[in-house]
Amino acid sequence: MPAQTLKVGLIGAGRIGRMHAGNLATQIESTELVMVADVWEENARQCASRYAIPAATDDYHDILAHPEIEAVVICSSTDTHALIIEEAARAGKHIFCEKPIALDLPSIDRALAAVAEASVKLQLGFNRRFDASYSRVHQAVQAGEIGRVQQLHIISRDPAPPPISYINGSGGLFLDMTIHDFDMARFLVNSEIDEVFALADVMVDSAIGEAGDVDTATILLRFNNGVIGTIENCRQAVYGYDQRVEVLGSAGAIRTENQYANTAIISDNHSVRRDLPLHFYIERYMQSYITEIESFVDAVLHDKPVSVTGYDGRMALILGLAAKKSLAEHRPVLLSEFIDDAGREA
Amino acid sequence: MPAQTLKVGLIGAGRIGRMHAGNLATQIESTELVMVADVWEENARQCASRYAIPAATDDYHDILAHPEIEAVVICSSTDTHALIIEEAARAGKHIFCEKPIALDLPSIDRALAAVAEASVKLQLGFNRRFDASYSRVHQAVQAGEIGRVQQLHIISRDPAPPPISYINGSGGLFLDMTIHDFDMARFLVNSEIDEVFALADVMVDSAIGEAGDVDTATILLRFNNGVIGTIENCRQAVYGYDQRVEVLGSAGAIRTENQYANTAIISDNHSVRRDLPLHFYIERYMQSYITEIESFVDAVLHDKPVSVTGYDGRMALILGLAAKKSLAEHRPVLLSEFIDDAGREA
Amino acid sequence: MPAQTLKVGLIGAGRIGRMHAGNLATQIESTELVMVADVWEENARQCASRYAIPAATDDYHDILAHPEIEAVVICSSTDTHALIIEEAARAGKHIFCEKPIALDLPSIDRALAAVAEASVKLQLGFNRRFDASYSRVHQAVQAGEIGRVQQLHIISRDPAPPPISYINGSGGLFLDMTIHDFDMARFLVNSEIDEVFALADVMVDSAIGEAGDVDTATILLRFNNGVIGTIENCRQAVYGYDQRVEVLGSAGAIRTENQYANTAIISDNHSVRRDLPLHFYIERYMQSYITEIESFVDAVLHDKPVSVTGYDGRMALILGLAAKKSLAEHRPVLLSEFIDDAGREA
Amino acid sequence: MPAQTLKVGLIGAGRIGRMHAGNLATQIESTELVMVADVWEENARQCASRYAIPAATDDYHDILAHPEIEAVVICSSTDTHALIIEEAARAGKHIFCEKPIALDLPSIDRALAAVAEASVKLQLGFNRRFDASYSRVHQAVQAGEIGRVQQLHIISRDPAPPPISYINGSGGLFLDMTIHDFDMARFLVNSEIDEVFALADVMVDSAIGEAGDVDTATILLRFNNGVIGTIENCRQAVYGYDQRVEVLGSAGAIRTENQYANTAIISDNHSVRRDLPLHFYIERYMQSYITEIESFVDAVLHDKPVSVTGYDGRMALILGLAAKKSLAEHRPVLLSEFIDDAGREA
Repeated sequence: MPAQTLKVGLIGAGRIGRMHAGNLATQIESTELVMVADVWEENARQCASRYAIPAATDDYHDILAHPEIEAVVICSSTDTHALIIEEAARAGKHIFCEKPIALDLPSIDRALAAVAEASVKLQLGFNRRFDASYSRVHQAVQAGEIGRVQQLHIISRDPAPPPISYINGSGGLFLDMTIHDFDMARFLVNSEIDEVFALADVMVDSAIGEAGDVDTATILLRFNNGVIGTIENCRQAVYGYDQRVEVLGSAGAIRTENQYANTAIISDNHSVRRDLPLHFYIERYMQSYITEIESFVDAVLHDKPVSVTGYDGRMALILGLAAKKSLAEHRPVLLSEFIDDAGREA
Repeated sequence: MPAQTLKVGLIGAGRIGRMHAGNLATQIESTELVMVADVWEENARQCASRYAIPAATDDYHDILAHPEIEAVVICSSTDTHALIIEEAARAGKHIFCEKPIALDLPSIDRALAAVAEASVKLQLGFNRRFDASYSRVHQAVQAGEIGRVQQLHIISRDPAPPPISYINGSGGLFLDMTIHDFDMARFLVNSEIDEVFALADVMVDSAIGEAGDVDTATILLRFNNGVIGTIENCRQAVYGYDQRVEVLGSAGAIRTENQYANTAIISDNHSVRRDLPLHFYIERYMQSYITEIESFVDAVLHDKPVSVTGYDGRMALILGLAAKKSLAEHRPVLLSEFIDDAGREA
Repeated sequence: MPAQTLKVGLIGAGRIGRMHAGNLATQIESTELVMVADVWEENARQCASRYAIPAATDDYHDILAHPEIEAVVICSSTDTHALIIEEAARAGKHIFCEKPIALDLPSIDRALAAVAEASVKLQLGFNRRFDASYSRVHQAVQAGEIGRVQQLHIISRDPAPPPISYINGSGGLFLDMTIHDFDMARFLVNSEIDEVFALADVMVDSAIGEAGDVDTATILLRFNNGVIGTIENCRQAVYGYDQRVEVLGSAGAIRTENQYANTAIISDNHSVRRDLPLHFYIERYMQSYITEIESFVDAVLHDKPVSVTGYDGRMALILGLAAKKSLAEHRPVLLSEFIDDAGREA
Repeated sequence: MPAQTLKVGLIGAGRIGRMHAGNLATQIESTELVMVADVWEENARQCASRYAIPAATDDYHDILAHPEIEAVVICSSTDTHALIIEEAARAGKHIFCEKPIALDLPSIDRALAAVAEASVKLQLGFNRRFDASYSRVHQAVQAGEIGRVQQLHIISRDPAPPPISYINGSGGLFLDMTIHDFDMARFLVNSEIDEVFALADVMVDSAIGEAGDVDTATILLRFNNGVIGTIENCRQAVYGYDQRVEVLGSAGAIRTENQYANTAIISDNHSVRRDLPLHFYIERYMQSYITEIESFVDAVLHDKPVSVTGYDGRMALILGLAAKKSLAEHRPVLLSEFIDDAGREA
C-alpha cells in the first residue's frame, strides 16, 4: 500500500459513476473508496458491493460529512453539479466533477467562488485531454514540432443519438457534445477563442428537432492568436465513434486517427477492409478516464495545480452558449458578448 | 489511327499549355494538334518543335481562322479567357478553357452567351473532377453507398505560395485557389450552395497581405439540400500538396488520402515514416489532366454533353465572389445576393 | 464480490510473476490471491505488500499445502516448471504455467502424466493466442472468411537482445523466442506441423554466437494440411517489438499490424511519420495476459476445457527441438523423428 | 525533336510487345519505332497502324537487316529469345529482351557469348527494378538507411492463374513467376544467393498439378553476405496482384505496400474498406515498363552500362533451376551445383 492514500467519496453511481468506481477500486493506486452515494440507494449499494466500498448511502451529505473523506468524485446528474461543488467546497473536500459544471453561467460562478474561497482543488472531467493521441498532438504543438499553429479541425461524432429523454435534459448539442470539442480546441491551440459561428440542422432524427435541438453541426472558431478552427459534430456516425483532430502549423501538420479493437486487415475479392473502430466513449477513452483521475489524485496528494480547471469548464460552457446564440441569430458571435475584459460575465 | 480525329489548336504555351500539348501529342488518341499560339512567338515555336505541331503563331486569331481546326484549348492568361471564348465561339470552334473564365460576372456572361448562340461545346478545366479518388467519392455519393450526405470537408493546401506577381493578377485566394474547391464541393454534394461564410488571414507571408490578399482561409458552406461543408485552404503546407476530402452520410462516410510517389515505409529507432506526398498539382493530378481532355474530345466527337460546363465555371466564380464579400463584411453571404431566381446576376 | 471466487497461489514473483499478481489483484474478478512464493523471500514479501496478498513465503510447498488454494500460477524459472507442475498436480491444484514446461521432452512427459493422473487442469502461458488481433485472425480462419489456408507468414522480432546470462539459460532462440511463434502457427492454421527447415545466424551480437546461440532465423514450416509457413525471428528490431502475421487463403488474406501508443501522424518537410510501435511484450500484450488468466479461471470455475493445453506446450517444444536439429544438420527435419504415430516420443 | 534519336525495331507484337510499342511511340522521347515484326503478319500490321510505325513484317530478319535500326526490343515467345539475341548481336544491334533469355543455361550462354563478341548492349526486362517503390527500397539499402541487411521477405502473387496452355510452355512456376522475385532479391540485397530451399504444392488448381507444375511456393534463400530471404509465391490471390517486399537491417526496416487505383476509404456499418489493389502487372508496373526502356535508350545513346545485364538474366534462371532441383530432391541446393567459381556452368 502506497505511503499516501487519498480517501475518496463517490457521488452518483450511474454509468459513468460505476466506471469511475471501477477505476478507483482497481486501477488507481493511492486511493481508497470510502463511501458511495446515489439518490437511488439500490444503485449505491450494488456499486459498493461490486467494488468492495465499505459504505453506501442515498444522501451525498453523508459523504460531505465524513471526516476522513478528503476528496469527492461527482458523477450525479448535471443539474446537481454546481450545488454539490459548492457544498463540497464548503465541507473542505477536493473535487473532481464530471462536465459540465452547469448549463448556466451564474450557477458556475457561484460554484467557482465557493471553490476559490475554500481553497480546495477542483478538476473538471474533460477526460479527452488525457488520451494518448490528443496528448501527443498537444505535446507536438507545445514543443513546436509543427511550428506556429494556423488551422485546426476537429471531428467528433457519436455512433448513435441518445434517447430523446436524454436530449431533453442535455442543454442541447453544443452544451452536451460540442463542449468536449470546445475544450479540446482550447487545449490543443493553447489560446482562447474570440468568436464562434455555427451552422446546424436536424439530419439524423426528426424527434431531436421536435425536442428543440439539432443533431448535426459545424462550428467555425476564431482564436485570439489568429488560428482558425472548425468542429464537425454529428449525433450519428453509423461506423462508430469518430474522434479525430488535425492541426496545421507553419512547420508541419499533425493528425490523429480513430482507434480499433484489432489491427487485422482482411482482403477478399470485394475489398480490403478492417473491423469498425471502437464503438463509443467507454471503449475509446477507457485509459483517459483512468489517467485523469490519477492526475487529480496526484494534484491533491502533492498539492500541484490540477490539469483541467473550473475556468476551463466555464470557458467551454460559454463557448456552447455562444454557439447556441450564433445558430439562433445566424451570425458570428463574439465571446466578449458573454465576458468582459476582466473575465466577468457581461 | 482512329476513325475520327479531332483537329485542335492550342492557345497559350505557358506551363499548363505545354502540359496540355504533351498530353494531346502523346497521351490522347483521336486528336491532332494543328497549331499552337502564344503571344511570345518563341514560346509557341518551342512548343511546336517539342511536340511536332505543324504550325506556330503569335496570334491566336490564326487558329480561329484555320478552317480545319475544330476545337481550341485555351491556356492563355486568365484576363484573356472570356474574350477568346467569345471569339472562338463565333468562329464555330468547340472550346476547352482553363479556369476561371473571368474574374467578373459580366465577362463570363458575355462569353457564355456567345457559346450558347454558336451552339459550340465549352468545357471548363476543373480537372480534379477527373481524378480517380475524387471520382470514386462522387460515385459513392451518387450510388448511395454512404446514404444521404450530411457533412463535407475539403482540405486543399499548396506546398508553397506563388510569387507576389502571380498573387497580384490572381483575383485573390478565393478566386484562384478556392475556386477548385468550390467546384469540388458542388460536384461531390450534387447540390447548389446557398450561403458562404469565410474566415481568413495572412499567416504564411506578410507580402501576400501587403498585396491585399490572404493566404489561409476556412470557408463554411450551406448547401441547398441542407449539407454543411467546410473548405480549409492554405498557400503553404511544408509537407507538400495536401488534397483531401471527407463526406459523411447517413449510411457511412468516405474520405480520400494524399498520394505518394512510392509506398515504402521506413522504420528506424526514431519513427515509422514515409517520403512526402506528391509535391504539387502537376504530379498529383497528372492523370486527371489527360482524362479531362479525353472527356472533352469524346463529347465533341460524339456530340455528348460536356462534363464541366460554363455554368459550373460561373457558379464557382460566384462562390469566390461571395467568399470575398463574406470576408470583407464578416457575415454569412447568400448566393442570392449575386443571382436572382432565374439564375441571372442580381 | 462474484458468487464464485477462485483462491490462487502465485509461485515466482519476478517480472512476469509480478505482472500476473497485478492482474489477478486488480483486473480479474472472481479470483483471490491467497499466497505468493519466491525463492527470494524479499521478492515474495514486496509482491504481497504491493498487491495486498495475505501471505508470502520462500517455499512454494507452502502454497501446495494450503488447503484453501485451488489453483497455482507458476512463474518461477523455467528449469523448475516441470517439477512444480508434477507436485502441484499431486496436490490437486489446477495449474497455470508460463511457457515452456521444460527444455526436454522427458520432463514434459512426466509433468503431463502427473496432470493427467490427477485430473487437474493445466493451461500453458501462450498469451498471444488471447491478443485481440491474433484472435481475429484465428476467428477469420475458423469462420472461413479467407477460404482454405495456403500460406502463413509470421514476423516476430524483439526490440533488443536479452543479457547473455539470460541467453545461457534460455535453451536458445528456437526454444525461447520461436516457441511462441510455433504455437501461433499451430493456433492460426489449426493443423499440426509435419516438417521444419531452419536457417539462422549471428547477425546482431557476436556474444550470442559465443554463447552457442543464434540471433536471427527464418524457419520454413510444412503443415499436415499442406499449408506452407514461414517464421522470421530476430533478437533485435531497433524500431521496437515487431509482431505481425499474414495468412493467405483461397478466398482472401488476413494480416495484422504492429500496435502503437498513439495514432498521431506528423507531416513536416522531411517525412510523414509516427512514433515507434509499443516497445516490448509487457506493453504490446498487456491485455492478452489478463485475458489468458480470465480464460483459465473460467475453465476452472466452470469445468471447461482450457484454451492452451499441456499438449500445445509439448508440441511447441518439439518444434523448437526440430528447428535446432534442422539448423545443426542443415536439412528439413520431420516431426516424426521426435514423435511416433501414437504421439509418443520417438 | 531531341538531338539524338534511337531508331528501334520491335520483334513480337503480342500483349507485352504492343505495350512496349505504345510506350515507345508516345512516352519515350528520343526513340523512333521504324519497324515491327510478328510471326502473325496481321499482328504486326495492326500494331504498326495503331502506333504509326512505318513498316510491318512477319520476318524479324527484316529488322535485323535494316541498316538504320540501331536497337531491337524482343518480345517474341520465350523459346525464340536466345536465338534472336544471337542473331541481333551479330547484326550489331543493341538489344532489349524480355525475360527470360531461355529456359536452359547452354542457350543463355551462347546468346551472352554472341553479345560479348559483338560488344552490343543487352538489357533484360526485369522491369520491377524500375518501380518507384522497389527503387526506394534499393536506394535505402544502398544508402545505409536501414544499416546492414539481415532478412528479406518478398510476397509475389498473381490475381489468377494463367491458362494451362501458358503453364505448359512457361518452364514452371520458378522459371516463369519466381524469376522476377529472384532478380528482385539479388537487386535489393546486393549480394549473390548461395543456396535455395523450396517448398511448393498445388493448392489453387489441380489442372496445374496435372501439367506437372505447382501453383503455391515458399522459397528460402541464403545469400553470400549472410542475409536470409524468403519468397512467397502463389498463382492466385483473389484480392488482386500482391507485390510487396520487406527488408530488415541492423538500423531499421523498410517495406512496401500494394498500389491502388484510388485512395478512397469507405466506412459503413460493417467495415472500413477500400477498393482492391491494382489488378495485375500491366496496371501495377505501367510506369516501370516506361522507365526501363528509357534507361535502355539512355544507356545506348550515351554509351553507359545497362541497368539489368545478361548476367542478371543468367543468375535468375540458375536460381529457378536450383529451386526446381530443391523441390524435386527436397533438400537445400547450392548454386555452386550449377556454377563453378569462375562463374561457368558446373
